[in-house]
Amino acid sequence: MKEIQGGVTAAKGFEAAGVAAGVKYKNRKDMALVYSKTPCAAAGVFTSNVVKAAPVVWDKEIIASGEAVQAVVVNSGIANACTGKQGYDYCRETAAAAAEALGISEDSVLVASTGVIGMQLPMDKITAGVSMLVSEKAEGMEAGDDAAHAIMTTDTVPKQAAVTVTIGGREVTIGGMCKGSGMIHPNMCTMLAFLTTDACITKELLQEALRSDVQDTFNMISVDGDTSTNDTLVMLANGEAGNPVISEKGEDYETFYRALHYINETLAKKMAGDGEGATALFETKVIGAATKEDAKILAKSVICSSLTKAAIFGHDANWGRILCALGYSGVSFDPEKIELYFTGKAGKMLIFQNGKAADYSEEEATKLLSEPEVTVLVDMKMGEETACAWGCDLTYDYVKINADYRS
Amino acid sequence: MKEIQGGVTAAKGFEAAGVAAGVKYKNRKDMALVYSKTPCAAAGVFTSNVVKAAPVVWDKEIIASGEAVQAVVVNSGIANACTGKQGYDYCRETAAAAAEALGISEDSVLVASTGVIGMQLPMDKITAGVSMLVSEKAEGMEAGDDAAHAIMTTDTVPKQAAVTVTIGGREVTIGGMCKGSGMIHPNMCTMLAFLTTDACITKELLQEALRSDVQDTFNMISVDGDTSTNDTLVMLANGEAGNPVISEKGEDYETFYRALHYINETLAKKMAGDGEGATALFETKVIGAATKEDAKILAKSVICSSLTKAAIFGHDANWGRILCALGYSGVSFDPEKIELYFTGKAGKMLIFQNGKAADYSEEEATKLLSEPEVTVLVDMKMGEETACAWGCDLTYDYVKINADYRS
Repeated sequence: MKEIQGGVTAAKGFEAAGVAAGVKYKNRKDMALVYSKTPCAAAGVFTSNVVKAAPVVWDKEIIASGEAVQAVVVNSGIANACTGKQGYDYCRETAAAAAEALGISEDSVLVASTGVIGMQLPMDKITAGVSMLVSEKAEGMEAGDDAAHAIMTTDTVPKQAAVTVTIGGREVTIGGMCKGSGMIHPNMCTMLAFLTTDACITKELLQEALRSDVQDTFNMISVDGDTSTNDTLVMLANGEAGNPVISEKGEDYETFYRALHYINETLAKKMAGDGEGATALFETKVIGAATKEDAKILAKSVICSSLTKAAIFGHDANWGRILCALGYSGVSFDPEKIELYFTGKAGKMLIFQNGKAADYSEEEATKLLSEPEVTVLVDMKMGEETACAWGCDLTYDYVKINADYRS
Repeated sequence: MKEIQGGVTAAKGFEAAGVAAGVKYKNRKDMALVYSKTPCAAAGVFTSNVVKAAPVVWDKEIIASGEAVQAVVVNSGIANACTGKQGYDYCRETAAAAAEALGISEDSVLVASTGVIGMQLPMDKITAGVSMLVSEKAEGMEAGDDAAHAIMTTDTVPKQAAVTVTIGGREVTIGGMCKGSGMIHPNMCTMLAFLTTDACITKELLQEALRSDVQDTFNMISVDGDTSTNDTLVMLANGEAGNPVISEKGEDYETFYRALHYINETLAKKMAGDGEGATALFETKVIGAATKEDAKILAKSVICSSLTKAAIFGHDANWGRILCALGYSGVSFDPEKIELYFTGKAGKMLIFQNGKAADYSEEEATKLLSEPEVTVLVDMKMGEETACAWGCDLTYDYVKINADYRS
C-alpha cells in the first residue's frame, strides 16, 4: 500500500469541481461535484438520527435501489434538514438539474448537504451552482482540491487522502475527501465523506466493506457528542483499474479492505483533530478489554468527556477525569486492576496502577499533554480486545463558534 | 406545604457546622458536619459509576447494614476517589475521629467528599477539622448556612431548601442542602446532597421515597454529561416531629413524598442553574410522549447537547440543534408531527410544526432565550407522558474553569 497525493480525483476516471455559488457564504467555494465518466457501484452509510436531512433520504433510496451512480452534488451552506416536503422536492430538483447538465439519469445523482438546519435552499443559486460545477469539472489534483475546499463549513483545513494497492496485477486507487468539525459524533458525523475508487468490485462487497470499516473509523470519533441529521459517507467504484472483479471475500478483498481502512482512519483522524475550536487531536486506545464492544465503549467514553477534553486543552494531567469517564461508560471493570498511560513523541508514562496514582512527574506529563496529538492508553487487564477512539480538546473557541454560528 | 427559610438545620433536632480546615483551599470553609441529637433512619442513593470514591463505599455499607446514623462529615477539597485501600482507611479514620468526638459509634457516621480525584487526604488537617466541627456545631439557620457554604467547590452560591407539611396533626419539616457544579450528570452528580427531616418514617419507606423521587429530580439534571465518582444523596430522619410513624403507603406517605419531591426538585434546579460557568438554567419539558421513559430520554438528550447549550449561551434560536438532539436520543418519532415551543416570562412561542419552521419572530425568540431561565417545550404527539430535565448553557467560563481546575 502506497500513500499518494490527492483525494476524490486520485482514482482513474473521476472528475471534480468546487465553485462559489453564494448559497450562504460570500466569496468562498460552497458547492462541489464529484463525477465519474462511467457508471459506478455505489455504497453508503448514513446518519442514525431519527431526524434525517432530505438528501440523506434521497441518497438512501438511490443506493437501496441498486442504481448505478455517476455524480454527487454537495452544498455546504444549508443542511436541508427539517425542511419538510419542500426540502425533499428541492433535493430532487438539485439532482435533476445536475442530471440534465451531465446528460445522465436523475437517479444516478447523489446529493449531500451540510450547514444550517431548518432553512430552505435558494434554488436559483443552487441550479446556477450546478451549471458552474458541470462546466468546470476536471480530472486531476487541483479539481479534487477545489471540491475538498468547497465542502468545508467550520473546518479549518481541507481533508483528503489517497492510496494505491495492487490487486490482481493491476494498480487500484482509493481516494477520498471529507468535512466535519462540529455536530460530530458519527453514528454515522455533520460529517460528509466521499470516497472514490477505480477498483472493480461488486456493489454488495463495496457496501459490506464500507459498513464494516466505518465501525472502527468514522464511528469512533467525536467532537461534541451531537450526531448530525446529515451524516453521509458514500463511495463510488467505477472499475476503471481493470482488476479482476472482487466478488467474494479473499486475498483481493482483504487488500482492498486494508486500503479502505487506511483512507477511512486517516480522514476520521483529520476530522477529529480539526474539531471546532480544537488545538489537539485526542486519541484514546483501550487494550486488554474483555470484548471488542467493551473496548469501543470505554475508548469513546473517554474522548467524549467534556471535563477530560477541557483538561487536555489545559495540558493538565487530570487523570481522575479519565478514570471517571471509564467508570460511567457502562462497562464493568475493577479499578484496582487497570493501568493508565499517557503516550506521545516524548515517550510513554505510567500514570495510574493498583488503584492509585503512579509516581510520575507532573512536569513530564504536562509535556506529553502539550503535543498536538495526545494519546491515553488504558490496559483493562481483562482480555485481548482493543479499540481506538479519536476526539479533540474542548476550548473557548468551540463555545465561540457555536454560540453564534447562525449569525 | 409551606416553603420556609433554611436547610439541614430546619428540621427539629438537627445541628450543623462549617469550618475552614485547609484541606485544599485557604481561607474558606471546606469541611461540614450535619448532626442529629438522636439516632436517625438513614437512606441514600449513590453514583452508578464503576469507579466509586472511598466514602461512597463506606456510606453504602453503613446504610445497607441498617445501622442508625447520627452524623455526616463532609470535605470539599479532595474527592478521595481512586485512592486505593489507603483512601478507604482514611475514610474510616475520619468517621472514627468524628465518632470519638461526638461520643457515638463509628458505624453511625457517614462520610462524603468532593474535589480533586486521585489525591490522598491530609489526615492531620481532616482530624483537626473534625474537632473544630464538633465544637462549633449548633442549631439554627446560621449553622446550616455555614455547612452549605463549606460543601461548595466551584459552586457560586450555596444551595438550600426547606418546607413544612402537616402529617397526622404534627408539623413535619424536610430541609436539605446540596453542592454541584461540574462533573454533573447524576446517575446519581459530583453532586452531594444532604436532606434532614424530623418526620417519623421507617427506614424502608424513607429509602423507597428517596430512590423513587431521585429519578425525576437529581437524575434529570446535567451540566456536562460526566457522572462523578462521588455522587451522594443521603437523608436522615430522626422522628422528632412526633407524627404517627409512616410505615405504609397512604395519605401520610403521599404528603411526605410531595414535600420530599419539592425539596429535591428545588435543589436539583439550583444545581443545574449554577452549573460551572452557566449564565442560564435550561429546562426542557417533553409532553405527549408514548412512555415516561421516552419522555425522560428525549428531555435529557436536549439539555445534554453541547451545541444546543452553546446556542442558549448565544441567545440564538438555533432550534435545528434541538430537533437534532431529539433525533439522536434513541427514541423513535415522526419529525413531521412534533411541535416545539420556547416559553418564558415573555410568553410561549411556536417554533417548529409540520416538519418545518413556524412563522416566528427571531427577535422575539432571542428575547425569550435571554431570560435567566430558558424553557423548551416539545410536544411529541404520541401519548400522554411527560418529563422535565434541567441543564445550563455552555460558556467560555465552563472551559476556563475546567482547563485549569487542579492548578
